[in-house]
Amino acid sequence: MAKLIEYKDMAPGARAVVDGIAAARGIDPADINNVWKALARNPGVMEQFAAEMKAAFAPGKLDPLTKELVYLAISIANQCDYCIASHGTMARNKGMTDEMHEEFMRVVLAAQKGNKIAMAYRVPVDAVFEEN
Amino acid sequence: MAKLIEYKDMAPGARAVVDGIAAARGIDPADINNVWKALARNPGVMEQFAAEMKAAFAPGKLDPLTKELVYLAISIANQCDYCIASHGTMARNKGMTDEMHEEFMRVVLAAQKGNKIAMAYRVPVDAVFEEN
Amino acid sequence: MAKLIEYKDMAPGARAVVDGIAAARGIDPADINNVWKALARNPGVMEQFAAEMKAAFAPGKLDPLTKELVYLAISIANQCDYCIASHGTMARNKGMTDEMHEEFMRVVLAAQKGNKIAMAYRVPVDAVFEEN
Amino acid sequence: MAKLIEYKDMAPGARAVVDGIAAARGIDPADINNVWKALARNPGVMEQFAAEMKAAFAPGKLDPLTKELVYLAISIANQCDYCIASHGTMARNKGMTDEMHEEFMRVVLAAQKGNKIAMAYRVPVDAVFEEN
Amino acid sequence: MAKLIEYKDMAPGARAVVDGIAAARGIDPADINNVWKALARNPGVMEQFAAEMKAAFAPGKLDPLTKELVYLAISIANQCDYCIASHGTMARNKGMTDEMHEEFMRVVLAAQKGNKIAMAYRVPVDAVFEEN
Amino acid sequence: MAKLIEYKDMAPGARAVVDGIAAARGIDPADINNVWKALARNPGVMEQFAAEMKAAFAPGKLDPLTKELVYLAISIANQCDYCIASHGTMARNKGMTDEMHEEFMRVVLAAQKGNKIAMAYRVPVDAVFEEN
Repeated sequence: MAKLIEYKDMAPGARAVVDGIAAARGIDPADINNVWKALARNPGVMEQFAAEMKAAFAPGKLDPLTKELVYLAISIANQCDYCIASHGTMARNKGMTDEMHEEFMRVVLAAQKGNKIAMAYRVPVDAVFEEN
Repeated sequence: MAKLIEYKDMAPGARAVVDGIAAARGIDPADINNVWKALARNPGVMEQFAAEMKAAFAPGKLDPLTKELVYLAISIANQCDYCIASHGTMARNKGMTDEMHEEFMRVVLAAQKGNKIAMAYRVPVDAVFEEN
Repeated sequence: MAKLIEYKDMAPGARAVVDGIAAARGIDPADINNVWKALARNPGVMEQFAAEMKAAFAPGKLDPLTKELVYLAISIANQCDYCIASHGTMARNKGMTDEMHEEFMRVVLAAQKGNKIAMAYRVPVDAVFEEN
Repeated sequence: MAKLIEYKDMAPGARAVVDGIAAARGIDPADINNVWKALARNPGVMEQFAAEMKAAFAPGKLDPLTKELVYLAISIANQCDYCIASHGTMARNKGMTDEMHEEFMRVVLAAQKGNKIAMAYRVPVDAVFEEN
Repeated sequence: MAKLIEYKDMAPGARAVVDGIAAARGIDPADINNVWKALARNPGVMEQFAAEMKAAFAPGKLDPLTKELVYLAISIANQCDYCIASHGTMARNKGMTDEMHEEFMRVVLAAQKGNKIAMAYRVPVDAVFEEN
Repeated sequence: MAKLIEYKDMAPGARAVVDGIAAARGIDPADINNVWKALARNPGVMEQFAAEMKAAFAPGKLDPLTKELVYLAISIANQCDYCIASHGTMARNKGMTDEMHEEFMRVVLAAQKGNKIAMAYRVPVDAVFEEN
């Protein structure tokens, strides 16, 4: 199990990262998720990841739920249980209904199958797909 | 390289699958993509995959581009070059701009990193994420 | 942890899938495995997977144990703990002895190594292997 | 591309490995497959892998085709193009018909889907599968 | 859960493997790690893996900590929780400080990202990298 | 194939990244590697990755070759052909001899096997490995 560091025991650099996340989410820094308590061991890695997550989820052309679904898709393909649990919850918080979840899972599973078919049958890329 | 079977040489079952796809896309069956030419060797697998893809991309609560981005995300995580080339093209055809592509890649890469961090630091799932 | 839906609480579509599996296995529907209790949330995905499993394990040219070993091999390569536990049990139920298990594991581990060697040394495919 | 070492240029240790394989297969050592020409750079790794492959495919309780299918299944799951091409060819040489190939692919794809379902829905292992 | 076989219940072949490892580490054979208790079911696989590990970690040109970091990197990429826990501990025992761990994680995460970028953008290998 | 953007055609942000890398390596910016020419399409992702690589390879407690070997190990586990080719070359440039390469590959392959064994036999983590 990870050695989790509670907010009160974090080094200043790690604490600053948690302060930023807690402020953005409107939560108490002491209630920060485990991934940040674990990362607090390596403040440099923690800062970089926090900045990357912030940039990835900054308002833009893709809506917040689409971004969550992309994050969740990657997590399922990579079989990260923590990420499936956490970003599955976040997707529901951002509006994913049971019906949307079923549609999402249909695409995920079709993609999984398409990926394996392309590999197993050693399919060459069509010229028309090489253009962009 | 895959043994590709051209439309004119396909068995009736395989040809029927291609007819359906070509009609839906408004293309000549002879111009069907390589993945179907390769799958034509195994018509049973081909029929099942075509039905699965059709169900996955049927109109629903998630818009067509979101579904393409989920499919593309899975393909990147699984490192399927054929699928990245083909569904990357389809995503652009369905409206993905360069700006959206950059946002998409930011989420994909942040997810990749988050997945590895959760594993490498052996982070236990927060109780709040166990509820759904 | 998954939200498991017990048989008595399933929607009619999900219940029908379980009835079919239970009848084929000669078990009480209430004793269905967890994977089906989890999938009952998404009856459409559940029906499709049940049909796919039935087709995959229908009597054919490959004997039942060979099919189980192929399923188990994929599950080990993909590191699916649930699937290793369940299909490992099924393989034993279908006749896999300790001796056969050891032979199976030798092939699995040799393949793992061969796969990595081919990638790490960037080995080009021999012309003789391109023919089929 | 790999730096391939031809038989005539191999170090004695590597040449001995090739002699053993060529004798067992009844082929000219100069016609050895690329994977061995690439591995000849690291004779120690080469000897170990050759011994492991020999032990894995030694006559036993599982028939030769079953072993090839297990090897091929692992290679598909791991997406090793070289191994899919080479062991796909070997499976056909050992008797895999088109009909068997379709059955095999059905099991491979069902397993792929089952693996992802178990992960995505976070299914807990049934007590009955914990026993062996 | 694995069926673990305690030292006193192991077959002679398995016991001999454990005796060798325990002697090299200066520990009581009864305190051998779980991986060996699980492998004791398949003594042939166990012997081969013990020999491979011994050869991999034999004194050579790479120092022991570098080898542990390579082993740990592979285990993180492959998402093997057991291996991350065990070889993470061994890396610390061989001198990995918190500072070195952070540097190591930075390289691991940069590599993860580089790997995905190369795939997602379908980058062709530079001619200068094809030479060795 | 990736759409590669040559240095002279890059946007100012992308060009600045290449200038930094070229200066650090003492090369002509026009000779920058393909990965940067591909990433130039998404300058934001490019800047972030360049910063991450710089931080990962900054002088520290781990020597440059060790870092390259960790990067190469991840790339082999993830089966990234571009990364194996490029970082394999860089490892040789930083002093990796054939003898060291063989030792490295022995550890990589032993780790691959250990990872699969831990999963396939479902080995529980020893209490002693849970402590850090």
